[in-house]
Amino acid sequence: MRAALYNGPHAIEIGERPDPVIQEPTDAVVRVVLSCVCGSDLWYWRGESPHDQGPIGHEFIGVVDKAGSAVRGVKLGDMVVAPFVFCDGTCPNCEAGVTSQCVHAYIPGSGGRDGGQGEAVRVPMASSSLVPVPGSGHSDEILRSLLTLADVMCTGHHAAVSAGVGAGSVVAVGGDGAVGLCAVIAAKRLGAERIIALSRNPKRQALAREFGATDILPERGDAAAEAVKEATGGIAVDAALECVGTGQSLETAMAIARPGSVVGVVGAPHRVDFPVVDRVVYRNVGLRGGVAPARAYIPELLTGVLEGRINPGRVFDFETNLDGIVAAYEAMDERRAIKSLIRLAG
Amino acid sequence: MRAALYNGPHAIEIGERPDPVIQEPTDAVVRVVLSCVCGSDLWYWRGESPHDQGPIGHEFIGVVDKAGSAVRGVKLGDMVVAPFVFCDGTCPNCEAGVTSQCVHAYIPGSGGRDGGQGEAVRVPMASSSLVPVPGSGHSDEILRSLLTLADVMCTGHHAAVSAGVGAGSVVAVGGDGAVGLCAVIAAKRLGAERIIALSRNPKRQALAREFGATDILPERGDAAAEAVKEATGGIAVDAALECVGTGQSLETAMAIARPGSVVGVVGAPHRVDFPVVDRVVYRNVGLRGGVAPARAYIPELLTGVLEGRINPGRVFDFETNLDGIVAAYEAMDERRAIKSLIRLAG
Repeated sequence: MRAALYNGPHAIEIGERPDPVIQEPTDAVVRVVLSCVCGSDLWYWRGESPHDQGPIGHEFIGVVDKAGSAVRGVKLGDMVVAPFVFCDGTCPNCEAGVTSQCVHAYIPGSGGRDGGQGEAVRVPMASSSLVPVPGSGHSDEILRSLLTLADVMCTGHHAAVSAGVGAGSVVAVGGDGAVGLCAVIAAKRLGAERIIALSRNPKRQALAREFGATDILPERGDAAAEAVKEATGGIAVDAALECVGTGQSLETAMAIARPGSVVGVVGAPHRVDFPVVDRVVYRNVGLRGGVAPARAYIPELLTGVLEGRINPGRVFDFETNLDGIVAAYEAMDERRAIKSLIRLAG
Repeated sequence: MRAALYNGPHAIEIGERPDPVIQEPTDAVVRVVLSCVCGSDLWYWRGESPHDQGPIGHEFIGVVDKAGSAVRGVKLGDMVVAPFVFCDGTCPNCEAGVTSQCVHAYIPGSGGRDGGQGEAVRVPMASSSLVPVPGSGHSDEILRSLLTLADVMCTGHHAAVSAGVGAGSVVAVGGDGAVGLCAVIAAKRLGAERIIALSRNPKRQALAREFGATDILPERGDAAAEAVKEATGGIAVDAALECVGTGQSLETAMAIARPGSVVGVVGAPHRVDFPVVDRVVYRNVGLRGGVAPARAYIPELLTGVLEGRINPGRVFDFETNLDGIVAAYEAMDERRAIKSLIRLAG
């Protein structure tokens, strides 16, 4: 089969890989229909984080092509959403709903494993990892939204859940990338009354409004904190969702969160040290989030997609096929695209 | 009146202060019956944190001696518990239950204000700050427990609430000082099934067991993390309560908290920087807590004290009067005492 292969920073090319086969009776092989590039893939593209040579990509939907004898819940021909972390579904962390911390967690597209940016993926622990999509003949619009459930929509949702967003919440979202925009969707879906999106990019501002943002603020850093406080009568927000992943964005999120609230953090602020006593202790602002337990969230969000209540697939504003993989990375790296979709033969 | 006066590190003496008077119609004057020394008072005693010269102490119970014309809810002669932060009860932070972050927050015993370690205290915002104690003729045991509601019992409770302790929780408590011991009480009261206390002091271990600890582990640091994991089948606890306030204790708490859980942090880790991405993001362990909203918690805990269901006053294992103030500090500073009580004429 053909697959994107990571050879180093700014060096990803399409190459040949062995066709995946069933190795364990709990495996399935999924033929990829839609894949995409994750913000974290850009860390590898830019050389900011190391990545093994070989397959890459951890977000995809596809069709079950082979299934081991012990696979239950999905069958040949099923359209499935694959969460970006496969899990056993039975360990204490899975039982607690934190499937991303499964003691047997398996991330595709790393360590030489099949990646989502390729024609097919062997999926271990298929019964507890893959989520079948009910119905058939779904529109391309629906399929694009289903693809976001592999990661970004669940990650935005995790920010909102971690921050305790609920009915009537006043929320601020830091980050206008795909995750931040999905966090806007999640906040609205959870009942937020007011959603302040921090963005200075007109296209992303428009999408944030479409997704439910009630206020758009272009400020950054201290000015953003001031603007949010002014917009909320000096008290700041009930929930700040940090979807950027820099030290400055985390500082801003902590500053705009009201005492007693929690910052939902899903951005990964590399090399950021955080003065606990000044923020958490003396201001009573908590910090919670992390790697989204996508598998746990997919079922409820899937229903929202199929019923047309949420449309996160709108974050894809660049599309190509496997041969255009470099262009897909470049469009995101240069911020020309919010998120790049890769359409496979299916 | 007579009051303890802070003159600098290791220099606290009893001196004369003007008798407090009503300055605003919302003021009360409380004659102090029982006071005590807080762990944070030791920071000033040791010179680790600055403190204004003059009155000190923020934990006391007493009797209302004077009340301004606008004071409601408490009346002359009432026994009252004073939270360590006075609050207006109406600002958005108070409305949200975070009375410790009241926009008009007033801490006694700082900035020249009357302190709890003195014969009387002027209490601004008395209606929304003081909590009257129902009944009369309470035993000394009850009064000692009521005194803990001014701070430590509420602070231990805040750790447990912040960490989401509930029915069936497996909890670890780091810190065997008065706050840690009160956190054990709080965890048990909230329904914890198993409470692991980290302590190597036999007297404090015994009190932790009396308060509801089911396991005692003497290890510290990495060894403590290993021991807790081993005691919990490798998965760690549902809630870790950090009641020490050092960088090492915070690291330990984060290490023993299972993915998806929250560390309740009420210790104030000075000058501790915290690598957010390694702990919160990649392990999905949150951090929440801070300065306890004592005023919000006192009513429910007060009921528990009066009904004899909790007995946090057992943390006082050293007692003196105002003239013995230096001995009260020294006993705690040298860890001979868990917590020093100061009995006033009343």
